[in-house]
Amino acid sequence: MEVDQLIKWRRELHSFPELGWTEFVTTSILVRELKLMGYEPLLGESIINTKFVRGRKKDDVEKAIKMAIDKGVDKELLDKMNGFTGCVAIYDSGKPGPTVSLRFDIDCVGVQETDNENHLPLINGFKSKNQNQMHACGHDGHMTIGLGIAKWLKQQQENSLCGRVKLLFQPAEEGVRGAQAMAESGIVDDCSYFLASHIGFIAKSGEVVVNPSNFLCTTKYDFRFKGLSSHPGKDPHVGINALAGCCTAATQLLAIPRHGKGMSRINVGVIRAGEARNVIPAYGELQVEVRGETEEINTFMCQQAERLVKGVALGYGLDLEIEIMGEAVDLTNDKEMVQLLSDVSKSNNQTVIEQRSFGGSEDATILGRRVQKINNGKAIYFVLGSDLKGTHHQSDFDFDESILPIGVKIYTDCLLKLISKK
Amino acid sequence: MEVDQLIKWRRELHSFPELGWTEFVTTSILVRELKLMGYEPLLGESIINTKFVRGRKKDDVEKAIKMAIDKGVDKELLDKMNGFTGCVAIYDSGKPGPTVSLRFDIDCVGVQETDNENHLPLINGFKSKNQNQMHACGHDGHMTIGLGIAKWLKQQQENSLCGRVKLLFQPAEEGVRGAQAMAESGIVDDCSYFLASHIGFIAKSGEVVVNPSNFLCTTKYDFRFKGLSSHPGKDPHVGINALAGCCTAATQLLAIPRHGKGMSRINVGVIRAGEARNVIPAYGELQVEVRGETEEINTFMCQQAERLVKGVALGYGLDLEIEIMGEAVDLTNDKEMVQLLSDVSKSNNQTVIEQRSFGGSEDATILGRRVQKINNGKAIYFVLGSDLKGTHHQSDFDFDESILPIGVKIYTDCLLKLISKK
Amino acid sequence: MEVDQLIKWRRELHSFPELGWTEFVTTSILVRELKLMGYEPLLGESIINTKFVRGRKKDDVEKAIKMAIDKGVDKELLDKMNGFTGCVAIYDSGKPGPTVSLRFDIDCVGVQETDNENHLPLINGFKSKNQNQMHACGHDGHMTIGLGIAKWLKQQQENSLCGRVKLLFQPAEEGVRGAQAMAESGIVDDCSYFLASHIGFIAKSGEVVVNPSNFLCTTKYDFRFKGLSSHPGKDPHVGINALAGCCTAATQLLAIPRHGKGMSRINVGVIRAGEARNVIPAYGELQVEVRGETEEINTFMCQQAERLVKGVALGYGLDLEIEIMGEAVDLTNDKEMVQLLSDVSKSNNQTVIEQRSFGGSEDATILGRRVQKINNGKAIYFVLGSDLKGTHHQSDFDFDESILPIGVKIYTDCLLKLISKK
Amino acid sequence: MEVDQLIKWRRELHSFPELGWTEFVTTSILVRELKLMGYEPLLGESIINTKFVRGRKKDDVEKAIKMAIDKGVDKELLDKMNGFTGCVAIYDSGKPGPTVSLRFDIDCVGVQETDNENHLPLINGFKSKNQNQMHACGHDGHMTIGLGIAKWLKQQQENSLCGRVKLLFQPAEEGVRGAQAMAESGIVDDCSYFLASHIGFIAKSGEVVVNPSNFLCTTKYDFRFKGLSSHPGKDPHVGINALAGCCTAATQLLAIPRHGKGMSRINVGVIRAGEARNVIPAYGELQVEVRGETEEINTFMCQQAERLVKGVALGYGLDLEIEIMGEAVDLTNDKEMVQLLSDVSKSNNQTVIEQRSFGGSEDATILGRRVQKINNGKAIYFVLGSDLKGTHHQSDFDFDESILPIGVKIYTDCLLKLISKK
Repeated sequence: MEVDQLIKWRRELHSFPELGWTEFVTTSILVRELKLMGYEPLLGESIINTKFVRGRKKDDVEKAIKMAIDKGVDKELLDKMNGFTGCVAIYDSGKPGPTVSLRFDIDCVGVQETDNENHLPLINGFKSKNQNQMHACGHDGHMTIGLGIAKWLKQQQENSLCGRVKLLFQPAEEGVRGAQAMAESGIVDDCSYFLASHIGFIAKSGEVVVNPSNFLCTTKYDFRFKGLSSHPGKDPHVGINALAGCCTAATQLLAIPRHGKGMSRINVGVIRAGEARNVIPAYGELQVEVRGETEEINTFMCQQAERLVKGVALGYGLDLEIEIMGEAVDLTNDKEMVQLLSDVSKSNNQTVIEQRSFGGSEDATILGRRVQKINNGKAIYFVLGSDLKGTHHQSDFDFDESILPIGVKIYTDCLLKLISKK
Repeated sequence: MEVDQLIKWRRELHSFPELGWTEFVTTSILVRELKLMGYEPLLGESIINTKFVRGRKKDDVEKAIKMAIDKGVDKELLDKMNGFTGCVAIYDSGKPGPTVSLRFDIDCVGVQETDNENHLPLINGFKSKNQNQMHACGHDGHMTIGLGIAKWLKQQQENSLCGRVKLLFQPAEEGVRGAQAMAESGIVDDCSYFLASHIGFIAKSGEVVVNPSNFLCTTKYDFRFKGLSSHPGKDPHVGINALAGCCTAATQLLAIPRHGKGMSRINVGVIRAGEARNVIPAYGELQVEVRGETEEINTFMCQQAERLVKGVALGYGLDLEIEIMGEAVDLTNDKEMVQLLSDVSKSNNQTVIEQRSFGGSEDATILGRRVQKINNGKAIYFVLGSDLKGTHHQSDFDFDESILPIGVKIYTDCLLKLISKK
Repeated sequence: MEVDQLIKWRRELHSFPELGWTEFVTTSILVRELKLMGYEPLLGESIINTKFVRGRKKDDVEKAIKMAIDKGVDKELLDKMNGFTGCVAIYDSGKPGPTVSLRFDIDCVGVQETDNENHLPLINGFKSKNQNQMHACGHDGHMTIGLGIAKWLKQQQENSLCGRVKLLFQPAEEGVRGAQAMAESGIVDDCSYFLASHIGFIAKSGEVVVNPSNFLCTTKYDFRFKGLSSHPGKDPHVGINALAGCCTAATQLLAIPRHGKGMSRINVGVIRAGEARNVIPAYGELQVEVRGETEEINTFMCQQAERLVKGVALGYGLDLEIEIMGEAVDLTNDKEMVQLLSDVSKSNNQTVIEQRSFGGSEDATILGRRVQKINNGKAIYFVLGSDLKGTHHQSDFDFDESILPIGVKIYTDCLLKLISKK
Repeated sequence: MEVDQLIKWRRELHSFPELGWTEFVTTSILVRELKLMGYEPLLGESIINTKFVRGRKKDDVEKAIKMAIDKGVDKELLDKMNGFTGCVAIYDSGKPGPTVSLRFDIDCVGVQETDNENHLPLINGFKSKNQNQMHACGHDGHMTIGLGIAKWLKQQQENSLCGRVKLLFQPAEEGVRGAQAMAESGIVDDCSYFLASHIGFIAKSGEVVVNPSNFLCTTKYDFRFKGLSSHPGKDPHVGINALAGCCTAATQLLAIPRHGKGMSRINVGVIRAGEARNVIPAYGELQVEVRGETEEINTFMCQQAERLVKGVALGYGLDLEIEIMGEAVDLTNDKEMVQLLSDVSKSNNQTVIEQRSFGGSEDATILGRRVQKINNGKAIYFVLGSDLKGTHHQSDFDFDESILPIGVKIYTDCLLKLISKK
């Protein structure tokens, strides 16, 4: 792979960072490049099951579409997307063989990129053009690797490969919002293999963590209570107090019992209720997340949380809206895939780290789990090491561009082992 | 009326005090005397609608029946009562005319009668024979007046009276438990007039309060939560915590909003949950009472309370039992009746007090309200003054027996005005 | 009084409405007019005890001062105000006699004035020039009456009056924020009489309510909790959860017991805590108000509320800031003053309404109460009727300008009775 | 060791089971036997630091003393005990050498022993003579082993042993109540070794678990709130509601945050507050236990719990009493001791189980920890297997008496290795 091409892609993508569900410019760049290679990327509701879209705000999407039009994004393309970002490019060898899916996340983080004079993107002129939006987690690198793989596939000799490869460019990974909708579109339901990765994070340039542990299952909720306002002096009995409901719910949620089988977590991160001191509050909302060491425990937390807020709604006579704003599961990498990654990494002169705690949530797990469950397929999530400037999600974050060709090579070497024609 | 007879009755009744819903001996005495006069008292489910029985414990009733049998109460009579105390004697003139209902409560208080040497019932040998049970509120006096009226009615010349008189000997006034069941039997549904009274309390011998004010509407509840116990160390997630539900419910109940239209009250008087420090509690209960200045306010409190505990049950996955343990309403005495009582009292040389705050609850109000509502009937609750030793509900309580004939006279003078044949 | 002058004043004041504590332009207009009459108005900390300033936000004040400068308000004047609005003009007869204080509130409401074509201020070109700020409660009228009285005083013949008159132009009546600071400056501590009034509200043009009832005592609180944020997944035990504290406090506040001696109220109108779903919240605040039928009851509510939030702070390890944002007391008009108002109103051909429920809070009561307490002085708060367009605090509010001279006349007739030289 | 003697001791002790802190008869039996062997057991406050006595009720103790007198226990002995049960026998070789402490718990469980005809204690006539008290956990076996060791020590040839052995007969292990008071008496502060064990439980006859894992740190609390009762109708504002405080505390305790470093637990097992529906409750109490995987975590739970209840007391104006009712720590067996036990067990033909989860709490850990901390001493807690009838704490529990001599042998073999004169 030509390094220059990879760096060029990365820097363009870095310039136009967009938050989850609003990656219209980003998607248009990906589509443009993929079309140049000869792909016809799938878009919109063919890859996004809208019923499972999490944490997407219509207002933000509409504003983003307008801005995309202003920036010259093709209206026809926007029509095909129908409001939903991301795309899937499919390489089809035309010959029988397994289908492999690879996933690359495309959204950015809500951070203002630094103006520090040592910051490489500033020096080299590809700093974010969008205020308070920045590729500060490395998803620009992920997309770049995806484009590199796409190009490599088209460069392979006819008859050398069999089966198919699906390149999933997934929106809204931040807040673990996008994967479920993509999974529920059925796009990976014919896949025998699933691979995804993150750069940096827990490993340096030259390292590959082939079996990161401690992915936490998590579900993100918004709970919204609607009541009736009234005058607290004259008519205290008339109001249906959404603030009272919210506060009671919050205290109950924080007291969900511990789980005997492992680690569980609950946080009520935000409460907003009421508009004025002298009005009984008619509206209130809670932003909540639960976590569990296993899916069983996370499910327990979800059931408890949902039941408690329903009880509060009943008890206080409030209307209740429950919205899942994000979700991820844990993932057990399949042994075969760990072995594959280990072999391939070593053959590329990378230091293989068997296990290291990831300690966070990642919604690629939902896609990987689906491949495992539906087809008894094999899945892996690994970490491609990278030296970092700053840390993830900080304004001075920057990764080591020299790992981009290594990333492409590891993936394509895996593909060679999985879908080479024998 | 012969005073001796009244005193004899009073003293026998005072000797056998029984708590609400267990007045089997008391009822048998009343029935015996009423039969001697020629009445055929109604009993059991003909005067008690069992669906509306409040605060009656089966175990206590069964024990009381056994004790009544031991004391020689006729088994046939007990069979007719079928577990439900109280009786109603009906005087029927055989001639057209209004039906008047008078109500006398028959239960005692859970107090051990004093052994103080100055205590008249001790001196005169009619102290309570039942441990921790005592006529310390004067219901023995009420019943005596009722018997006196019953006898007077039978002594009247044929043709002098018209219509009918129903003498209601009501169980379980303490805790305002018995009236609703009697009301719902329909026993007063043909009545045009209702009269009831209390002796002592807020007036001295020689006084009659013809329009006591500030009767509070009230409802008494038991809320019982049932969950599932588990080991709090190994299986904290398995338990369904009735203590958590109880405590949450209690804090929510205490926060029922104030009412803009008047005084409201809520008390959680008792909580009991859990049996051992190291078990997640499977059972818990709350003893609660709400009050309201008006029936509207009391109803608001009831609705809020019931909705809140249902919400808690839903939220925590608990089974819930709601039992109404007692209830009373407010009562507005009809002007005509106030005038009647005033006239009659004055003609009997009593000092008439127009209005004085009662400030408590009394379930005769349920019967009075029913007469007012169903037949547009007229109702009154008045206070017949009595000098007192001790205060109500205390072990040294005693009232002035000389008011008994005055009580009978006031009632019968009223009857003469209401059902004299013209 | 020349009506034209009153209307001119009113309309200028109406054009420049300013919210409580930001009435710099308003104060400058008042000062300009009062100086023209020959007064030297007191300003700033001589009339405002800054320790008792309630609900004043520094940022808003600073912005308002900048805007006042832009609008040409004299910098020297602003320096004297030192950030605190309002002024007091003192008429001194130079002769022995009582001191009378009259209070006029000067702030506006946060409402955007209507563009409805029938709206008189629009038609006549004196609509609010300030966005989302409008004299929609009639304080422009109050100030106008105050100026009229000020002018009348200066027009009286030497020797006709004795004693002194203090004309209090008080900031920040909305939210009952300004009176306490003015009272605590000691400005009324030498006064024997206090008069204040509101136009409109519960009476029509031609009516005067001389003894409005049901002023509610109230205290407005902000409670702010500060804790420590942490990661809810990795370090749930490290955080000091301000949201948990806020919610617990809110539920406890709503459960402050009812008061046996009369009406009490509590409202938690606003809660804001936490900034992100995945951070344990380090900050949270509650906006609260309590009310009581009497000062005793309001004090009870305050004590309970303050004690509860202190308990929560201790229990959760949070720092707590309690700020009183406003306050008012009840007021019992002195009989002599009611009689005086009644006489004067009648002699001006007004219909006198003895009593009518006011049913809200008004911080003039604090000044009136202080006069009563310190000097055994006499105080009154009355309502000067006015036909209204729209209702108070609405965008189409407008009062009847013809009542302005009546208002002036009633006050000056009172003054004639109180401080005429005999 | 003569098996007959062991069985005789065991059966006598089994006949007179006594609950924690009331083991007066039990102690008198132990003292009698130890004196026969030539010991002068330490008693009362010389081995119990009364400041650290947990979960001991004076009333129960006084009753037990009276019963002990009735059963013929020597009054002089009771005087020496001064109300505190347990004893310590010290074997002193008179020669320099280490001090070894062994601990045997002496209390029973609150269970009524079965009358099932197959129950060996019934068949052989040594069933519990005390109602609802039974050695259903095997502490009778522990004491018997202790007596066996005591006798063995006295049988050893002079000069064969060096150093000292302290035989601790500890009261009130159930509820982990007794060890802290014994530890704080300083009785083990000169010890270099500590050994303790439990029979049965997680191992069968012929097995020895030399390194049981998962001892949980725990603290048991009673929280008692005292307020002021009042009439909820007339004086709701006068009461200081202990029930409200209790319920609020319970809900807050259940919401103590999870700990990021490991397992934590909280249970509110019992709540009792209020005495009557129509009285504002003046008293309430909670029975609580916290647990932690490590002492750090348990300490965190304790600090949170104590702070929360103090906050509630402050917030509600309640008096608060915090009493620690029991406590235990975790224990890490020293490697040397595990090796010693392993060797000795094997040489006695026992199957050695290296590790098996204990999963409960045991207060011998407090004594073991103290020896480790103060003298850098070595400690072990092991499980001596026994076939069981029924399970621990059940009415049909019974252990295999044939393990008693094995138990004695294992301990004495250990002693031979630790204090043989070289």
